[in-house]
Amino acid sequence: MSAWKNLDTLDAWKAIEADDHRVAVKEALAGEAGAKRMAEYKAPMAAGMTYYYGAKAVDEELLNKLAALAKEAELTEKYKELYEGAVINTGEKRLVLHQLTRGQLGSDVVADGVNKRDFYVKQQERIAEFANKVHAGEITNAAGEKFTTVVQIGIGGSDLGPRALYLALESWAKANNTLKMNARFISNVDPDDALAVLSEIDVAHSVFVLVSKSGTTLETLTNESFVKNAIEKAGLDPSRHMIAVTSETSPLAKNSGYLAAFFMDDYIGGRYSSTSAVGGAVLSLAFGPEVFAQILDGAHEADELSKNENLLENAAMLDALIGVYERNILDMRATAVLPYAQALSRFPAHLQQLDMESNGKSVNRFGESVSYQTGPVIFGEPGTNGQHSFYQLLHQGTTIIPLQFVGFVENQFGEDVVIEGSTSQKKLSANVAAQIIAFACGKDDENRNKYFEGNRPCSIIIGKQLTPAALGALLAHFENKVMFQGFLWNLNSFDQEGVQLGKVLAKRVLAHETDGALKVLADLLEI
Amino acid sequence: MSAWKNLDTLDAWKAIEADDHRVAVKEALAGEAGAKRMAEYKAPMAAGMTYYYGAKAVDEELLNKLAALAKEAELTEKYKELYEGAVINTGEKRLVLHQLTRGQLGSDVVADGVNKRDFYVKQQERIAEFANKVHAGEITNAAGEKFTTVVQIGIGGSDLGPRALYLALESWAKANNTLKMNARFISNVDPDDALAVLSEIDVAHSVFVLVSKSGTTLETLTNESFVKNAIEKAGLDPSRHMIAVTSETSPLAKNSGYLAAFFMDDYIGGRYSSTSAVGGAVLSLAFGPEVFAQILDGAHEADELSKNENLLENAAMLDALIGVYERNILDMRATAVLPYAQALSRFPAHLQQLDMESNGKSVNRFGESVSYQTGPVIFGEPGTNGQHSFYQLLHQGTTIIPLQFVGFVENQFGEDVVIEGSTSQKKLSANVAAQIIAFACGKDDENRNKYFEGNRPCSIIIGKQLTPAALGALLAHFENKVMFQGFLWNLNSFDQEGVQLGKVLAKRVLAHETDGALKVLADLLEI
Repeated sequence: MSAWKNLDTLDAWKAIEADDHRVAVKEALAGEAGAKRMAEYKAPMAAGMTYYYGAKAVDEELLNKLAALAKEAELTEKYKELYEGAVINTGEKRLVLHQLTRGQLGSDVVADGVNKRDFYVKQQERIAEFANKVHAGEITNAAGEKFTTVVQIGIGGSDLGPRALYLALESWAKANNTLKMNARFISNVDPDDALAVLSEIDVAHSVFVLVSKSGTTLETLTNESFVKNAIEKAGLDPSRHMIAVTSETSPLAKNSGYLAAFFMDDYIGGRYSSTSAVGGAVLSLAFGPEVFAQILDGAHEADELSKNENLLENAAMLDALIGVYERNILDMRATAVLPYAQALSRFPAHLQQLDMESNGKSVNRFGESVSYQTGPVIFGEPGTNGQHSFYQLLHQGTTIIPLQFVGFVENQFGEDVVIEGSTSQKKLSANVAAQIIAFACGKDDENRNKYFEGNRPCSIIIGKQLTPAALGALLAHFENKVMFQGFLWNLNSFDQEGVQLGKVLAKRVLAHETDGALKVLADLLEI
Repeated sequence: MSAWKNLDTLDAWKAIEADDHRVAVKEALAGEAGAKRMAEYKAPMAAGMTYYYGAKAVDEELLNKLAALAKEAELTEKYKELYEGAVINTGEKRLVLHQLTRGQLGSDVVADGVNKRDFYVKQQERIAEFANKVHAGEITNAAGEKFTTVVQIGIGGSDLGPRALYLALESWAKANNTLKMNARFISNVDPDDALAVLSEIDVAHSVFVLVSKSGTTLETLTNESFVKNAIEKAGLDPSRHMIAVTSETSPLAKNSGYLAAFFMDDYIGGRYSSTSAVGGAVLSLAFGPEVFAQILDGAHEADELSKNENLLENAAMLDALIGVYERNILDMRATAVLPYAQALSRFPAHLQQLDMESNGKSVNRFGESVSYQTGPVIFGEPGTNGQHSFYQLLHQGTTIIPLQFVGFVENQFGEDVVIEGSTSQKKLSANVAAQIIAFACGKDDENRNKYFEGNRPCSIIIGKQLTPAALGALLAHFENKVMFQGFLWNLNSFDQEGVQLGKVLAKRVLAHETDGALKVLADLLEI
């Protein structure tokens, strides 16, 4: 068993804190030495991608100290305990097994009398069989017609991750003739969300995936009612149009109101559930089970790489340590995620949940207040769009924000046009390369308005193309980064007590059991 | 003429800085006094909306000091200078006239020999005439068939604002039978963006709006080529399918390649251009010119309210001052925008550009470095979705982030379902009310994991329904807030020198004129 200690009690951390050694990126990247550094500061990632950190504020001395910290914090040991079934989610007394949905990383994990890897694989096989039958026209609507659209009904982790992954591969699937069904998503309790989606789709040829672990999520059940109304209004039987993704003990399981039910369990947190049945059902229906399996393969390869004890060969761990250094030593409170791929338009929103819900906490895993900063604010939009928007502040604002870029050599469609001697894809790539150097190295100018200070820390993940495997690798990279950061900060990254109070108060408002300022607000909103 | 001074040279500011008076929101909102405060701390907004700031960290003493600051900084005088045509954008030596696109606020502004209000109105009239002809089937494709879809091609301000406004009213327009055409948007230089949109639409029945002030924006011209290719591939003539929104001196004006050209000018900054022809063309085509006119009316009413010298009756100015207090005294570096309306899903992305590109600067309007913090990071997603995502950090993270909520009494579609005794709209509203109290007042608990510190400053804008006028009012409120903050920080909020360096370097990469670290990156990306 590893020892769970607060970051500020670790000798390796104290050594980093005591040091006033700072790396100026601008100088480090200058000239031939800078070129060498940019080429060599890299770590392998899954699916042939590479993590480049030459524009981060680190050098060999600091990397050695971070490696000592990783060792003293027993990061790889803690990871091993996690994937071999320790109760890592201490608050809720649960195992944390999302990595097992994509492969066996260590010894078998048996819980509740079941081999959990077998359980997750079985669900994947059941989903694959169901999806293949839908695609083959063996499972149809009551009129015997094929389903053309799949609509996911879920919120939080049942929405953001699966939606980000669907959007990331929609164009790829079109280009590769593997888009089997269009997918849409309903999440918000705002009635206009469900009504807008229902006004766009052909209900008679749609299958709806209701995702709720407990089977009691208010938003999701409310939206189910909208959908059932719409199905009935079309003269159809809802039970021929709906499937459930839920836990085996939920009211949605073994329920004749659904065509089928696929299962997850308490060991898969919502924000880590994209590779479970939560993402599996909608993505297998949309793209085919083979494509979903490729996502899992990419993620599993990333999970395997995260076992590496050598910091310089473990991109997720390195990313985590550099992030903690930026957060706690350099006092940087936000991180921007900037994918140069339109397909990743909602990937930052998924990472926002993943990171901020996991590590936005003030108490350690034993429920004691910590005296250091924890998770940063995460935000981002795809480049080049962001360049014409908030990059102004990133370049010349008074607060430095570390930047996580992602870029690919090839686009998804394969098609392109040449304008002024270059393709759009080359222009896109030229921009991401240029931005990194602009942020890191800046530019002197006597006119202070045109002066760029530089020294904005940047990293970039580079891949050949955003394929299903690359997407799975990206997903798992960030999951594992967040996990390692949680270990360093000694947090429980797998609960979310911060969402409870609002739920309790909202119920009170709906029951008209309020007074004081809350009653005033409720009255103003005419509840 | 008002005096342009740095914030930290103003006596009223020094008085605020010198004071260690802090307002604990948690205590201020307790009991009946708290209820009274919540009801009374409000300022009127346009279109019948109200700005409530009872959960902000202010009290009468501080509000008086902020009022003194507003006076000493001559905020309303500066605003008057702006709308009456002073050269407020000093760096680029330009007037700043976006408010004139929606109404006459003061004396006539004559520039380049033209009354500018007349110029903007004339463009609106030309657009209205064109849109009405398209809707009436008088302007059609070459086969004489009606256009059904409008596609905006633009980036930055030519994309984010118009897209956010379109999405905000798409459901409203469906519910009110005024959706004349579907709108789509192409922005990113990533070729997959244009190809994805083109793969979804019916090109033969689409009209494309090319938006570029200079007529030289690389991303936009590149995407135009994709579109022209697609139109030609369909055996059609591009000049029958494209209109331009540009300046009168651009190569796109008076160009036979376009069905029509509508004009903006140098006095409308990109991020402030939604109410000019940049938003006017696409929104008038999508919703009809009457709906666009209602947006303008709401915005103009907000502009008029921003003239009020009484801080407590000027919501935009009050919002601005509280924001500067949070940024510079309370050291809060980010602000979350949380609309409880799915229709506002991309409104935070527009505000992100508006705010961060305007005030993310380190030099004052005279090009001198400032020694205080300027614009914050802006991010946000609609509630209740955000509740199931990043709210964990907002509630229990180590960094306090001020929160800007928006809520409406009614939804847009009018339809709803009752589950467990309440409609979805009531559930949505109950959640926003509950969140504000949870953030502001927190909750004690012996279990630190379930403890909420509270004292997260919140404000909420409440309206009856998200109508075109309410949307215009929201848009102008935030524009004017950002403007007032720029005045306080003594910035030029209307240029964006920070975007230049990246452009220059990207060109060098494409010309293969690089060395050092930039060449390494270019090679890795195979440019």
